[in-house]
Amino acid sequence: MSPRVRVGVVGAGAMGSAHVRTITDSVPQGLVTTVFDLDADRAAAVAHPVGATVAGSAEEVVLSDEVDAVLVASPDFTHAELVRACLKAQKPVLCEKPLALSAAEARSVVEAEVTLGRRLVQVGFMRRYDPAFADLQRAVADGRLGDVRLVHAVHRNVSSTTSTDDAGLVTGSMVHELDVIPWLLNDQVRAVRVESPVTTGFRDPQQATVWTRGGVMATVEVFVNAAYGYDVQCEVVGTRGTAALGPVRSLASRIAGVEGRPLGGDFVEHFADAYRIELSAWIRACYAGEPPSGPSAWDGYLANLAAEAGVRSLASGLREDVDPGARPRLYDGS
Amino acid sequence: MSPRVRVGVVGAGAMGSAHVRTITDSVPQGLVTTVFDLDADRAAAVAHPVGATVAGSAEEVVLSDEVDAVLVASPDFTHAELVRACLKAQKPVLCEKPLALSAAEARSVVEAEVTLGRRLVQVGFMRRYDPAFADLQRAVADGRLGDVRLVHAVHRNVSSTTSTDDAGLVTGSMVHELDVIPWLLNDQVRAVRVESPVTTGFRDPQQATVWTRGGVMATVEVFVNAAYGYDVQCEVVGTRGTAALGPVRSLASRIAGVEGRPLGGDFVEHFADAYRIELSAWIRACYAGEPPSGPSAWDGYLANLAAEAGVRSLASGLREDVDPGARPRLYDGS
Amino acid sequence: MSPRVRVGVVGAGAMGSAHVRTITDSVPQGLVTTVFDLDADRAAAVAHPVGATVAGSAEEVVLSDEVDAVLVASPDFTHAELVRACLKAQKPVLCEKPLALSAAEARSVVEAEVTLGRRLVQVGFMRRYDPAFADLQRAVADGRLGDVRLVHAVHRNVSSTTSTDDAGLVTGSMVHELDVIPWLLNDQVRAVRVESPVTTGFRDPQQATVWTRGGVMATVEVFVNAAYGYDVQCEVVGTRGTAALGPVRSLASRIAGVEGRPLGGDFVEHFADAYRIELSAWIRACYAGEPPSGPSAWDGYLANLAAEAGVRSLASGLREDVDPGARPRLYDGS
Amino acid sequence: MSPRVRVGVVGAGAMGSAHVRTITDSVPQGLVTTVFDLDADRAAAVAHPVGATVAGSAEEVVLSDEVDAVLVASPDFTHAELVRACLKAQKPVLCEKPLALSAAEARSVVEAEVTLGRRLVQVGFMRRYDPAFADLQRAVADGRLGDVRLVHAVHRNVSSTTSTDDAGLVTGSMVHELDVIPWLLNDQVRAVRVESPVTTGFRDPQQATVWTRGGVMATVEVFVNAAYGYDVQCEVVGTRGTAALGPVRSLASRIAGVEGRPLGGDFVEHFADAYRIELSAWIRACYAGEPPSGPSAWDGYLANLAAEAGVRSLASGLREDVDPGARPRLYDGS
Repeated sequence: MSPRVRVGVVGAGAMGSAHVRTITDSVPQGLVTTVFDLDADRAAAVAHPVGATVAGSAEEVVLSDEVDAVLVASPDFTHAELVRACLKAQKPVLCEKPLALSAAEARSVVEAEVTLGRRLVQVGFMRRYDPAFADLQRAVADGRLGDVRLVHAVHRNVSSTTSTDDAGLVTGSMVHELDVIPWLLNDQVRAVRVESPVTTGFRDPQQATVWTRGGVMATVEVFVNAAYGYDVQCEVVGTRGTAALGPVRSLASRIAGVEGRPLGGDFVEHFADAYRIELSAWIRACYAGEPPSGPSAWDGYLANLAAEAGVRSLASGLREDVDPGARPRLYDGS
Repeated sequence: MSPRVRVGVVGAGAMGSAHVRTITDSVPQGLVTTVFDLDADRAAAVAHPVGATVAGSAEEVVLSDEVDAVLVASPDFTHAELVRACLKAQKPVLCEKPLALSAAEARSVVEAEVTLGRRLVQVGFMRRYDPAFADLQRAVADGRLGDVRLVHAVHRNVSSTTSTDDAGLVTGSMVHELDVIPWLLNDQVRAVRVESPVTTGFRDPQQATVWTRGGVMATVEVFVNAAYGYDVQCEVVGTRGTAALGPVRSLASRIAGVEGRPLGGDFVEHFADAYRIELSAWIRACYAGEPPSGPSAWDGYLANLAAEAGVRSLASGLREDVDPGARPRLYDGS
Repeated sequence: MSPRVRVGVVGAGAMGSAHVRTITDSVPQGLVTTVFDLDADRAAAVAHPVGATVAGSAEEVVLSDEVDAVLVASPDFTHAELVRACLKAQKPVLCEKPLALSAAEARSVVEAEVTLGRRLVQVGFMRRYDPAFADLQRAVADGRLGDVRLVHAVHRNVSSTTSTDDAGLVTGSMVHELDVIPWLLNDQVRAVRVESPVTTGFRDPQQATVWTRGGVMATVEVFVNAAYGYDVQCEVVGTRGTAALGPVRSLASRIAGVEGRPLGGDFVEHFADAYRIELSAWIRACYAGEPPSGPSAWDGYLANLAAEAGVRSLASGLREDVDPGARPRLYDGS
Repeated sequence: MSPRVRVGVVGAGAMGSAHVRTITDSVPQGLVTTVFDLDADRAAAVAHPVGATVAGSAEEVVLSDEVDAVLVASPDFTHAELVRACLKAQKPVLCEKPLALSAAEARSVVEAEVTLGRRLVQVGFMRRYDPAFADLQRAVADGRLGDVRLVHAVHRNVSSTTSTDDAGLVTGSMVHELDVIPWLLNDQVRAVRVESPVTTGFRDPQQATVWTRGGVMATVEVFVNAAYGYDVQCEVVGTRGTAALGPVRSLASRIAGVEGRPLGGDFVEHFADAYRIELSAWIRACYAGEPPSGPSAWDGYLANLAAEAGVRSLASGLREDVDPGARPRLYDGS
C-alpha cells in the first residue's frame, strides 16, 4: 500500500464534496485520487482543487489501481451495488447511510461480505463518532446511570429536501436514531412503532417508540420541517440518574430582552467534528489494513430492518417486530 | 360574608398542614378557623398555632357556621363524598386531586353541581398556577409556536410512598399531566396509552402517549422512583418553534470538576409558588362570591376519566379512548 | 397591638404602591390603614382600593393612632427625617433605600436609634430576602467554596430615570451591591474604587472594585442604560470552587434559529418574591414586637458611607477608604 | 517547496509533543521531519512514531535542508533567540507564547523581522483560532452589541506548575487575555493594572484591569490554583447587548440531586480544536508561501509589553501605561 490511503470517491454532491474537503484538509493518511459523479462538471469541480482525477464511471473508481479504498456518497439506490463491487474488488468501503434501499438488499451485502470472510464495509452513521454522543455512550457504559429504562431522542431539521414522504422520513432521517440508540445501549432493536399527530398529507413530525431486547423503551421524535433550526437531543434515563447531550458550544448573547444562543443550521455543520473523526478513523484502519471500527454492514442491515419495521408500523398502526436472524460470526466483537 | 373567608380544613397531613401554613402566612383574605383530622393530635398541632379550633368530624367542618369555604386534603377515598357534602351545604370547596376515586364517582359530583346550578368546586391541580406553566400556556396561546404538533412531558420523583402500584402511578402522579396538557393546549384528551419498559413487578417508569381532539400527540414519562431528584419538564413543539419550562432558579456552582445546579427534593418545595397562588386565587374568588377560576369539577372528572383509560391501557396494551359525553352548560367558558 | 400590624405608608409612587399591593395581597399580619403622598390623588388611588384612608401629611401618618408601623417610600431626601420622626414616635419603620442622602445624615439616624436604645429601623435592601441571593449566602457560609477570594457582580437596567448622573448611579443603583456584598460575605467594606470607560458626559457603565476587611476583592459593574434587559449577576469565587446566582426561571424557547429565554424588564418584577418576603418578615417582627431581622440603620449608614467613598473615587480616580468608626453595641448580633 | 511543508520541532515537552501529534493526525499539508529536545530520549519518543529524525541541536533543526518551517515549543528563555535564527535562515516559524522573556527582547525580534522585510513569525496565541472566541470576535465586529464598553474575562486552572510566582502568573497565564482582548476588540492595550486579594506569599488569584486606546475597560481574573476545574470565560458588554463564550459542549447529567456538566481538566483538552486549527492555518500559509495570518511578532511584542506593565503594576499598585511606539509598516493590515 502507498504511503497514503488513496481514496476514490463516488458521488460529488453535498456529502461527497464535504468528505473530499475534510480528507484533504484534515486526514493526512488519506489522499483523494479520483472522483466520479454522473455530473462530470461537478466531479471536476470537486476533484481538481485537490489534485484528483475525474473517473468515467463508478466502476472505474472501484477498480482503479490508483484507489486503495472507496467512499460511496452517491444516490441511495446505488449504495448496495457499489458496496458489493468493492467487496468483489476486495477494497475497503465507507458507504454513506443507508447501506441499501431495503433490508433484503442490505442482507445481500452482508452475505457477500460473509462469503468473502473479511470485513471491508463501514456504514456512514457518523453520530457514533460525535464527541457528545461518545460522552453519552460512556456515561451509559460505566454504570453511573444505573440500569437504563428509557431513552428520549429528538431530531429536527429546519426543512428537508430529501425526507419528503412518510417512508422517506423513516429511512432517511429516523434511521440515525435506529442506529445510534442500540449502539448507545450496547443493545438491539426488538420492535418499532411509528405514529404521527398529522393524519393527512406528509406525516411530519413522526413520533416513534423503539423497544430493545435489553428491555429499554425509547421515544423518538423526528420532525424534518421544524422550521426553527437543526436540533438533535438525546437523554438516557436510568435507575440512578440521567445523562443527555449537553448544549452545543455557541455564543451566548443578551440582546433585546432575550438571553439566547444560536442554533446551527444543518447536520453538516452540527456534525462536522463527527465526520472528520469518522473519516480519520476509517482511513487509519484502511492504512493499517485492519477491519473498520465503525458501524459494520451488519449494523447497516439492522438499521434498514428497523426502518422497514417503522415504515410498516406507519401503515399498520401497530408495533412491528424486528427480527434479523442470527448474527454471522464475522461480526462478533464488532 | 365576614371580612375574611373563614376556611375549614379537612385533613391535616402533609398537604393539609402546608395549605394551612400558606393561607395563614400569605393569604390575607383567608382565615383558617377549624381543622379536622382522624388523628386529633395532628389536627390540634396544625390548628392551634394559627388560632383555629379542632373539629370533631369532617361533617362538622362542612356544616360549621364558622366556615365559609372548605379545603379538602383528606385521603383520596373521602374526596367525592366531602365535595358533595359541600355542594349540599352550598359552600365553595377546594378539593385536592383527585376529585374522586373513579370517573363514575367524579361524574356524580359533576351532576350534583349541575343540579345545584352553581359552580362551587375547584380541584387542586396546582400546576395551572405555577408561573412556569403559566408562561408556557401563554406561549402556546399567543401563537408564536405555530400549530402545536407534539408535547413532551417528564415527571420524576426521588421515590414515592403514595404511587406504589401500576394503577396508583397513573391515578396519583400521571393525573397531573392528564390535566395540565389539555389545559396547556386548550384542548381535550381523546385517547391514552400507557406502557412501561418494566414488565414484572411495579411498572415504574411508565411511558404514556396522549392524543387530543385537536390533533396533538403528547409523550409523558412518569418515573416515581427516579432516585436523583424531583424533576418536571414539559416541551411544546409547534410548526414554528418550541417552548419549554425553563430551568428552576437555583444556585449555579462550580466545584470538583462539575458545573452544577441543585435539583429540588419534592413537589411541595418545587410548586410552593403554585400552591400559594392557587390558594390566593381560590380564596379571593370565595371572597368575591364568584365561581372558582381554577380547574372545575368537570376538569376533575376529565382527569379521572383519562386516568382510567390509562389504567385500562396498562392492562390491554392498547390505546384507550376517553369519552366524557357532552359537557354540561354550567361549565361553558370555564 | 391590634390583631394586625396597621401600616402607614408615606409615598405612593411606584415602590410605595407596589408595597401596599403586596401587603394587602400577601401579608395577612399586616393592614395598610393610611397613605400619604404629596399628590393626594395618587394617595387616594392607592389607599382607597385597600380600604385605607388618605393622610394629610407624612407627620400625620407617623403620629396616627391607627398606625403601628411606618413604611417610608417617599423621595430620598425625606428619608432620614421621617425615620427620625418614627424613632421619636417609637414606631417600627421600614425605610426604602437609601436611609439618607449622606452618611452624616444616616449617622444621625443611627445615633437617634442608639439614644432610644431600641432597634426600630429596617432599611429596604430587599436583595437579602431574594431566594437566589439567600442560596448564595448559604453557599458562602457553609464553607463549600473554601476561602472566598473574589466576588464578581453585575447590575444592569434597560434604562434608568432615577440614576441619571455619576453620583446618582453610585448612590441609587450600586448601593445595592455595596450592601449585599458584605452581607453575602459576613464582612465589611474597607475601600471602594469606581471607574468608568466613559470619560465624558454621564459615566455609565461604572466599574467598581470593593475591598473588604476580610481580604476579599469584588468587581462590580453597574450599567443603568444597558438597553437589552434587567440583569443581576453575582459569582463568589473561593479556593475550592465558585457559586453564582442561577438562571432566573423563565420560558425556554427555540424559535427562528435561537434558543432563548426572556430577560425580565425591571427590578419590581425580578425581585417580586424578595419584596414579598421582606415585607412579610418585617411585619411579622413588628407583630411579635421584635427588632427587625433585616438591614439595620447601621447597615444603611454603612451603605451610605461606601457609596460616598465611591462618589469620591469617581472624582479622585483613587481607591477611597471606608471608615465607619466603632459599631454601637445596639447593633451587636444584627 | 516539497509537496508537504516539512516541519522541524524544537522542544518535545507537553506542548511540542501534542503539536507533533496534531500535525501528524490532522494536518495533511504538514510533515514533521525532525525533532530536537535537550532530553534526547524524549525527542526520540516523539519523533520516531511519526517517522521523524532526532536532531542534535536546535540550530540543526533550524538550518536543516529537511526543514521548511520551524515550530518552537522549547523553554521560554530560548524563544527569542530561536526565532531570530529562523529569521536569519529565512524560514517561517511558529513560536509558542511568549515570544520572548522581555518586551525588549521581543522588540529585537520585531526589528530583525523588519530588517528582513518579510513576515515569517507567528506567535502561538491559539485562542484566536478557538471557534468560540472566533464567534465572539464576529459578534463584536458586526456591530450587534453596539459600542463596546466593558469586557469581563475569567481564566482559571485547577493548579499550575508553570505559573508559580506573581510575575509568572502575569507573563505565563494572563498574557493570553492581554493578547486576546485587544484582538477581540480590534483595539490596543493602553494601560494595565494588576491587583490581588492575596497580600502575602504567591498572589493568586490576580485581578487585572485593562484599558484600551479605543476606550474599553476590561476586567480580568486569573486564578491558577482554582482547584475545581479549567475554566475560561469572556463576556463583551456593549451599548446594545452582550455576548459571551457559550457553554462548552459536554454531557448534561442529573444524578444525586444535581444537574451538572463536567468541566474540562486543562487547556490542552479545552483548546484542542484551537490548536488544530492554528497548526492547520499556519502550515497552509507556509505551503502557500504567504505570511502567517495569526498573531505576528508585533502582537507578541505587544503582549510582552502589556505583561511587563502588569508586573510593574503588581509592585507599584498603580495603573501602568503600555507604550509600544509606532508600529512598523511591515505589520500594516496584519
